[in-house]
Amino acid sequence: MNTIRAGVYGGSGYAGLDLVEILSRHPAIDLVFATSNTYQGDPVPSADLCFVPPDEAALEAVDVIFLALPHRASAAMAKRGIEAGVKVVDLSADLRMDSPEAYQTHYDSPHPHPELLPAPYGLPEINRANLAGVDVVATPGCYPTTALLGLYPLLRHNALSADAPVIVDAKSGVTGAGRKPSLSTHFAEVYSNLIPYKTGRSHRHIGELEQEAHKLTPRMGPIIFCPHLLPVDRGLMASIYVTLNDCFDSSQAQDLFAEAYGSEPLVEVLPAGEQATLKHAVKTNRCAISITPVLERYLHITSVTDNLRKGAASQAVQNMNLMFGIDETTGLI
Amino acid sequence: MNTIRAGVYGGSGYAGLDLVEILSRHPAIDLVFATSNTYQGDPVPSADLCFVPPDEAALEAVDVIFLALPHRASAAMAKRGIEAGVKVVDLSADLRMDSPEAYQTHYDSPHPHPELLPAPYGLPEINRANLAGVDVVATPGCYPTTALLGLYPLLRHNALSADAPVIVDAKSGVTGAGRKPSLSTHFAEVYSNLIPYKTGRSHRHIGELEQEAHKLTPRMGPIIFCPHLLPVDRGLMASIYVTLNDCFDSSQAQDLFAEAYGSEPLVEVLPAGEQATLKHAVKTNRCAISITPVLERYLHITSVTDNLRKGAASQAVQNMNLMFGIDETTGLI
Amino acid sequence: MNTIRAGVYGGSGYAGLDLVEILSRHPAIDLVFATSNTYQGDPVPSADLCFVPPDEAALEAVDVIFLALPHRASAAMAKRGIEAGVKVVDLSADLRMDSPEAYQTHYDSPHPHPELLPAPYGLPEINRANLAGVDVVATPGCYPTTALLGLYPLLRHNALSADAPVIVDAKSGVTGAGRKPSLSTHFAEVYSNLIPYKTGRSHRHIGELEQEAHKLTPRMGPIIFCPHLLPVDRGLMASIYVTLNDCFDSSQAQDLFAEAYGSEPLVEVLPAGEQATLKHAVKTNRCAISITPVLERYLHITSVTDNLRKGAASQAVQNMNLMFGIDETTGLI
Amino acid sequence: MNTIRAGVYGGSGYAGLDLVEILSRHPAIDLVFATSNTYQGDPVPSADLCFVPPDEAALEAVDVIFLALPHRASAAMAKRGIEAGVKVVDLSADLRMDSPEAYQTHYDSPHPHPELLPAPYGLPEINRANLAGVDVVATPGCYPTTALLGLYPLLRHNALSADAPVIVDAKSGVTGAGRKPSLSTHFAEVYSNLIPYKTGRSHRHIGELEQEAHKLTPRMGPIIFCPHLLPVDRGLMASIYVTLNDCFDSSQAQDLFAEAYGSEPLVEVLPAGEQATLKHAVKTNRCAISITPVLERYLHITSVTDNLRKGAASQAVQNMNLMFGIDETTGLI
Repeated sequence: MNTIRAGVYGGSGYAGLDLVEILSRHPAIDLVFATSNTYQGDPVPSADLCFVPPDEAALEAVDVIFLALPHRASAAMAKRGIEAGVKVVDLSADLRMDSPEAYQTHYDSPHPHPELLPAPYGLPEINRANLAGVDVVATPGCYPTTALLGLYPLLRHNALSADAPVIVDAKSGVTGAGRKPSLSTHFAEVYSNLIPYKTGRSHRHIGELEQEAHKLTPRMGPIIFCPHLLPVDRGLMASIYVTLNDCFDSSQAQDLFAEAYGSEPLVEVLPAGEQATLKHAVKTNRCAISITPVLERYLHITSVTDNLRKGAASQAVQNMNLMFGIDETTGLI
Repeated sequence: MNTIRAGVYGGSGYAGLDLVEILSRHPAIDLVFATSNTYQGDPVPSADLCFVPPDEAALEAVDVIFLALPHRASAAMAKRGIEAGVKVVDLSADLRMDSPEAYQTHYDSPHPHPELLPAPYGLPEINRANLAGVDVVATPGCYPTTALLGLYPLLRHNALSADAPVIVDAKSGVTGAGRKPSLSTHFAEVYSNLIPYKTGRSHRHIGELEQEAHKLTPRMGPIIFCPHLLPVDRGLMASIYVTLNDCFDSSQAQDLFAEAYGSEPLVEVLPAGEQATLKHAVKTNRCAISITPVLERYLHITSVTDNLRKGAASQAVQNMNLMFGIDETTGLI
Repeated sequence: MNTIRAGVYGGSGYAGLDLVEILSRHPAIDLVFATSNTYQGDPVPSADLCFVPPDEAALEAVDVIFLALPHRASAAMAKRGIEAGVKVVDLSADLRMDSPEAYQTHYDSPHPHPELLPAPYGLPEINRANLAGVDVVATPGCYPTTALLGLYPLLRHNALSADAPVIVDAKSGVTGAGRKPSLSTHFAEVYSNLIPYKTGRSHRHIGELEQEAHKLTPRMGPIIFCPHLLPVDRGLMASIYVTLNDCFDSSQAQDLFAEAYGSEPLVEVLPAGEQATLKHAVKTNRCAISITPVLERYLHITSVTDNLRKGAASQAVQNMNLMFGIDETTGLI
Repeated sequence: MNTIRAGVYGGSGYAGLDLVEILSRHPAIDLVFATSNTYQGDPVPSADLCFVPPDEAALEAVDVIFLALPHRASAAMAKRGIEAGVKVVDLSADLRMDSPEAYQTHYDSPHPHPELLPAPYGLPEINRANLAGVDVVATPGCYPTTALLGLYPLLRHNALSADAPVIVDAKSGVTGAGRKPSLSTHFAEVYSNLIPYKTGRSHRHIGELEQEAHKLTPRMGPIIFCPHLLPVDRGLMASIYVTLNDCFDSSQAQDLFAEAYGSEPLVEVLPAGEQATLKHAVKTNRCAISITPVLERYLHITSVTDNLRKGAASQAVQNMNLMFGIDETTGLI
């Protein structure tokens, strides 16, 4: 296996720190730099490096860059990476929407580099065929990853009723809100609390979620999405409630999921009767899913990831493995 | 105000402890005894008493008894209380179902005292008219209280679609699982975790929930109910997703709730745009509700209580106040 | 009881919020205003007011002001209050040191109003005689309150060895670090962690602690003080380890404490053999203390308060009660 | 490297689960069985095995057994292992005391197999020379490991005052209390709390701690040891306060520690001025130590481990590596 030289932009955020940790143990990776404005000069935990400011990072010394940057900053850096001939794994939202118009709708500003769209959507279990060998990948958000994996076996079989909404009641650990201090992530505000936010259809991830779902099926109602801030540091649970159409019975669902994910190393379908909990996924690189049939037409699915791993850093590495043609799970299991 | 002499059976469980605390500060109450098998002889926190075993409690010395006992044990004690001529506020499940058959269905055993059914269902905001001056009241469970208060303004106006399910994704603090030690309440099992349990329609509270909802309207789909164990000590959130029928628009919901609860001292409807969080209700005797319209026909409601207060102990006291004809909020605000 | 008109400066910090809650239920208090720059215009939780900016607060409309402000800002406001003829209860550090020189030593800047020093030190259980009817009181810090109450019965009897240090290993909930967001109070940094900070003799509270201890006895070694940030929202435990001198035996300590605090309504000495835990004090206005004799000359004392109550807000109200000559525990038990 | 066949007794407790996880990734280990009475038949997390009851475990199929059993049960199994000619790594307290008399003193019952005593004490950083190639090792308790590593550089240089006590204020996550449900490990009892227990000199670990300390120096005062139950799942902090004798100055301590542990891969001495926090050690196999000089003669040391790793399972594996003559850190870094 040839060594792949990698650089991480935004290495001191929570996703960046997990990314650096995974890359530093990845057998094919030589981690060349990790950037941070806030922590420049400080040692990078779990790597033999110090954080450098972005403009001291040497693009010419790497084969691939990971962008764990705020949106807008990320697109600019992706552009620079592409021009420099390095592969780009973007963890921000900048490359996830297929069109500048969709980006404008959900992010309230013009896309800074519309020529970059569309980029391949890096959810390998659904979109693997479009990721092998490519130069740029948009790594999905934590909520869309978890929800789409919980819906995929149903969507690809057109199993949902077109007339009923898909309910996604989601709960995320606080690292999902980023490392920048704010009152909403202050310990004393979150502790012992549970906080719904951006409910209904107002969270930005709804655009990405519906865009990708509609590629799989035209037949589904609107997604109603309510995220909650959970008083834990990491882990994300999407509780999904769907209505099946007349061609499907909820008792068939376990088989549909087993078939879809039977050979997937990073998705675990729990046996019928067991429930996926946060602990099934936290500090792992996997998604865990449980299926509960409820009456004939209704189904309850629990899909769980670590928001910083399968919801961000480890999925980015999974994408990179595909981009370089090495085994998809290298460094991940 | 005449003094009401009260006794608490099961005073050392979590609901019992909150009950004793509320009663000991209640201006009309003289707390005569609190029973506990496990802690007999120990001082009762927040009261000037020691726990006594149940058979040393003097029924003839009290005007009312509160039963915070396991189901089945509670029915037997309710029977004894009634025969002794004292009023009975039951916090267990034993008097909540209207018929022995329904009890058998949900509790998997014959009702120990079928002659006690039906008893008035003690959710004052919905059923106040049937509680004034009565001798026995069944205090609702924490999940049904929280969900029914979140649905009531819609149910009484027949606002729901008859063809769509009502989704109740609920999250409860660990005191809801009782004080008896078990692996499922071990600190290290719950900490940093989130655990769905008895999902779909398998939790016992579903029977009580649908029984009471159907008294308000025949027009609604099945309730799909998924409780989760939340890593906090107290607080309960019911996230409710409903489909409205053609006569209603989601933008009307805020007004329906404001109208229903405008004069209710123990239900707080948050202003449009705000979200109810666990902290709105924990350590209070109130239910807090927020309403989020989602597209024209869909509505997301968040209803929050303290599972040990409005979900148990303070609602029991609210019922007692009604039973004795004193102001309903005495000792509660 | 005549009504006392009160104003709170800094009402939106954690201590300020508890203070407003206590004052709004205090039978002798009419809460006239609560100031906040950050939250001006927002409703004050637990009171029928909105936060006003400090310059809109009407000093002439109140009899007493509480200052829950950053140090330096507090001294300036204390000065204004005194000049306006209102009583001042300061919760900041500005009036706690007896001399400008001591202030300079521990706060690294000249005292903004040296003419205000010394002010009576508001720890009523130790210094009650100097608080009755006065116009200004410095309310102690949370660490000194908890540590001094744990040491007082020994200090006043000259029971400590002069040659051995007094060890104070303290643990505080995160509200003790204030409400202003910072990385050190970010949920994900504190959760599952335990963080020593400003250890040895570098925390500012050491000055106040030794100043007051030395007023009680000249006979004690240096205090070694290590605070830790505990992953809970509120509560403070001081674990104190002392060496007794030859005149005392550790077996006498329980009696010394019982004697000192037997008639104190806000200090609870636990029976021999029991240990004070955080739950003994959280959300109460009391300090709880347990005493463990260890060999003949060594003693381990655990002293616990709620850092926002007896460590701040409720002690401020206790002081105010003394300043106005009303029962010291009014509004507190 | 030859494969070492290993069996784990008591694999479903918290230490047992970590042990199985470490062994299943250890490059030299073939994990043959893991026993559990409670969970027999269930899959072993992180291994391709199911739990078997102890009497179905085949001693003849393994080269080494790990005993994560309750004390007394452990000694009996150690005896059987020795007689069967397999190496024994005991994680219980049964082999830690050097004499049956000392065991009787601290465990209140006669030692079940006095002929097994003394066994080598498996704290490699202190006692490595006595562990190479041996057949039986007593793995130390979590508190003694953490405290002894924090004291070792001082003890071996006779740096402590003989007249002053050594204070060990310790805080442990709840897994330290074992997996068996009890009220004291119930989530709602521990959450938001901090609980001192077995304080002074009453905790059983004091015997082991002083026994090993006295082998290093005769010159030290008594150890005063106060453990606390911390509301986190794992991690242990020992806050140590010592008085130095006239030959040493606290400013020399950083060098003493750097010298003692400079080449130790599993002990991290933090740079002067930094403080060891729980996060430095949790989910690692290391001990992290920080040193704070306080005046000339006093020193504050913070020593931190993961109670289930360096405090139990990973230290057991470290010992096993030494017993089989392979690199001490195999499978651990």
